[in-house]
Amino acid sequence: MITWNNLDKLSSYKGLFDVKKVNLQEAMSGENGAERVKNYSTPMAEGLAFNYAARPVDEGVLEALKKLAEEAQLAEKFKALYNGEMINTGEKRLVLHHLTRGQLGDTVEADGVDKRAFYVEQQNRIAEFAGKVHSGQITNGAGEKFTTVVQIGIGGSDLGPRAMYLALENWAKKNNAFKMEAKFISNVDPDDAAGVLNTIDVAHSIFILVSKSGTTLETLTNESFVKDALKNAGLDPSKHMIAVTSETSPLAKSDDYLAAFFMDDYIGGRYSSTSAVGGAVLSLAFGPEVFAQFLDGAAEEDKLAAEKDVMENPDMLDALIGVYERNVLGYPSTAVLPYSQALSRFPAHLQQLDMESNGKSVNRFGEPVDYVTGPLIFGEPGTNGQHSFYQLLHQGTDIVPLQFVGFRHNQMDTDVVIQGTTSQQKLCANVAAQIMAFACGKSDENRNKNFEGGRPSSIIIGDQLNPRSLGALLAHFENKVMFQGFVWNLNSFDQEGVQLGKVLAKRVLAHETDGALKVYSDLLNI
Amino acid sequence: MITWNNLDKLSSYKGLFDVKKVNLQEAMSGENGAERVKNYSTPMAEGLAFNYAARPVDEGVLEALKKLAEEAQLAEKFKALYNGEMINTGEKRLVLHHLTRGQLGDTVEADGVDKRAFYVEQQNRIAEFAGKVHSGQITNGAGEKFTTVVQIGIGGSDLGPRAMYLALENWAKKNNAFKMEAKFISNVDPDDAAGVLNTIDVAHSIFILVSKSGTTLETLTNESFVKDALKNAGLDPSKHMIAVTSETSPLAKSDDYLAAFFMDDYIGGRYSSTSAVGGAVLSLAFGPEVFAQFLDGAAEEDKLAAEKDVMENPDMLDALIGVYERNVLGYPSTAVLPYSQALSRFPAHLQQLDMESNGKSVNRFGEPVDYVTGPLIFGEPGTNGQHSFYQLLHQGTDIVPLQFVGFRHNQMDTDVVIQGTTSQQKLCANVAAQIMAFACGKSDENRNKNFEGGRPSSIIIGDQLNPRSLGALLAHFENKVMFQGFVWNLNSFDQEGVQLGKVLAKRVLAHETDGALKVYSDLLNI
Repeated sequence: MITWNNLDKLSSYKGLFDVKKVNLQEAMSGENGAERVKNYSTPMAEGLAFNYAARPVDEGVLEALKKLAEEAQLAEKFKALYNGEMINTGEKRLVLHHLTRGQLGDTVEADGVDKRAFYVEQQNRIAEFAGKVHSGQITNGAGEKFTTVVQIGIGGSDLGPRAMYLALENWAKKNNAFKMEAKFISNVDPDDAAGVLNTIDVAHSIFILVSKSGTTLETLTNESFVKDALKNAGLDPSKHMIAVTSETSPLAKSDDYLAAFFMDDYIGGRYSSTSAVGGAVLSLAFGPEVFAQFLDGAAEEDKLAAEKDVMENPDMLDALIGVYERNVLGYPSTAVLPYSQALSRFPAHLQQLDMESNGKSVNRFGEPVDYVTGPLIFGEPGTNGQHSFYQLLHQGTDIVPLQFVGFRHNQMDTDVVIQGTTSQQKLCANVAAQIMAFACGKSDENRNKNFEGGRPSSIIIGDQLNPRSLGALLAHFENKVMFQGFVWNLNSFDQEGVQLGKVLAKRVLAHETDGALKVYSDLLNI
Repeated sequence: MITWNNLDKLSSYKGLFDVKKVNLQEAMSGENGAERVKNYSTPMAEGLAFNYAARPVDEGVLEALKKLAEEAQLAEKFKALYNGEMINTGEKRLVLHHLTRGQLGDTVEADGVDKRAFYVEQQNRIAEFAGKVHSGQITNGAGEKFTTVVQIGIGGSDLGPRAMYLALENWAKKNNAFKMEAKFISNVDPDDAAGVLNTIDVAHSIFILVSKSGTTLETLTNESFVKDALKNAGLDPSKHMIAVTSETSPLAKSDDYLAAFFMDDYIGGRYSSTSAVGGAVLSLAFGPEVFAQFLDGAAEEDKLAAEKDVMENPDMLDALIGVYERNVLGYPSTAVLPYSQALSRFPAHLQQLDMESNGKSVNRFGEPVDYVTGPLIFGEPGTNGQHSFYQLLHQGTDIVPLQFVGFRHNQMDTDVVIQGTTSQQKLCANVAAQIMAFACGKSDENRNKNFEGGRPSSIIIGDQLNPRSLGALLAHFENKVMFQGFVWNLNSFDQEGVQLGKVLAKRVLAHETDGALKVYSDLLNI
């Protein structure tokens, strides 16, 4: 029997405050520190490992977090979710993104169909379509092969797929899996679409219109923009466009598209990278086999997320430590710092995933909560960030917990030896050094050169960023956010906070405003 | 006579806490709100305006901030800075980036030369060189024109110039000022350089090596990577590379470069976009005239920053309101949200500018301060962010002050009318709507749809993003950060916080580690 309680109603939460705090500087020093790094590690899928040695926990804190996990029924709640209970209560929807990559539990039926079968069917339809595009069975009006695919979407239809594409672009080039270049148009700013169209050969481009509802203003506007460009080039738009949408949307059966592939209301935009939303563009860019590997990696990580034992469940463990840092230690933000240029937009995706899921002040029953919830998420790849905002992370007045990601091998084979080491070794040496610099600091009589330390971090270490490990990495963070939502008793799957702005923007465009909004509108010449 | 005091030693600071707080929801409602939007605006350079109506200030708070500005001697300190006093006391250096765009005060001599004349000389040398590249007087070894310029640099040698390039790329294409495509290589991750080299025609590319000291590890490593690629293509690297460095660096007189252009120790990396660091790549990409316009815009804004009257000084005013939000209201972060896709990497540049300048815990004398300093800075362009992290900004448990930027006109002329309005109008309507949604919120019986409001923002409004307005915008934020550093009594021009990581990374690479660092190194196969 699952009960949904606010965090501050749980006795294990109150207990967390009584546990002795960890002195990270001490804990990470000397041989004790070495032992921590060896022991405070939990295997993830696809050879990844979640190492939390430099997070502010010890046996006492971990024991208390384990009690919290049990009292908050985290494993049971995930089980209910993947078995098809209505977890998105606000919108009265199931939450089924895990089903796009595997069947963790019972068969889930909705809308009169087996949903796993539905998602697999869409994958197969996309695979067949992509195969025909690659083989030249589906071509442009002149019978020529498409060379470029352009995703038109915003938010979850943009950030996740874009981050995944960038993560695998060089890997695919190296591994003979690069089929087509992908570009992305998202912003309603007309210069976004114009800028992208300027850099591509529209005659050989296929466009994917992505909108679940078929009514997203930015996306429909950009579609018109692209259609104008196609017509101006003497091309027939319906020969250059496909749609990813829900079966009930106006786009689903329109003749304006070569084909339509389907998602549904049970997959939130920010969780849609493994659905047709990511599937179409990634299958066209890299081939359906690569997309299938990506799904396999995510499915393997999901299996670990279903583990009841926190210590064997890296996603739940990461979530719980994050809650401890947020609610007990009071840190308001978290940085995501991948030491891999290919993950340059992964932090922007996690920013949406996390902040849109858990940036809420009411619980799942619509009652205000009396504790802080989702943190602010930001990040850039290392080593770039080291030459930028790390100054504040090391010596600023606030403490920011850090989530590092690092890989032993790079994606392309080329490297260069300078001063006896490769660039890849330098990259890895830097992330190792940063963890220790943040944790232990270094005292200096010149206080300007003094590092207090005590700044927590974890690192996910893998062998190489490839489709499988990327899938596992994505699922890890999706599941972490889900578990944190359970702990905070939030509905992590709606986003009512985006509505008011939409309503007011419509009023501005209809010139139905007064007061301050009218003056702003005038200042902006609307 | 200037005195450098900690913020909490100033009576005007203590006074700030006693001033009645503003109820933003009330203040922005009705006719009062309309009056605020009309009146709470200060002109910036190049037709921009800084509108702070939705920031949590009123006449009382502004009066108190004015006293703070006077007691903290902000105008006098800036005057001392631009007249050549040694403001970067930690490194014993002058702070002269303003001189790259104009002479605000006295002639500044250092190293035996007039520094303004020195910077202008470098601009002229770059202009001449760029002109020869564009006209085909300087070519590759085969006598063919260069078509692409690639900047190799990290931190300030990357983020600022990259953000400025992206900000003007489409404008230049539209205005016949686009000379060469620019690319950027920054990360020590070898996949960064390999990925960029994969997308360009090296035979027709000219590379700019940017390192003030000539010793930046990432940059020298990437230089070698690029040289290998050039040699493998049968090309002579010295015919494809120029350097931007200090006159005393090992790169300054090397035969490895076609030419070397100089910056000096008085310009910090994060303040170097208007120096040769930004000058070389932007002059090659868009022509020296465009770079000169960019400098003019910055110079005009700098003049406003020299205004003694806070209310006529948008940079100082923005700084003071930010201090009020950070130290009195206790908000730990600030979002930068440009409604312009061209400014996609502007927030990443400001992240470095702000967090590396003011993310410090000791004052300019090396003594710990007892108040919070620089906030966490992050951001993405709108409307993209609306479909991502805005959920937390609207309904999360923490309040995040926002800095919007918007323009009445887009850069390219193409647009599309949907539902009676252009995309540009939709873009502007959205930013206006967001300001009001954040400030006033909307009450709803369904608490999940309730918006508390009271979330502060300001907006910089301009006519169009072009070289001049971009220069003004950049200078605004540079000067804002400088003034905040003065208020907090920090040295905003050093960055000791980046050193420890470098030292430890060297030890890792030399295998001179033990304890936890050794175990991390082993896990990462170094």
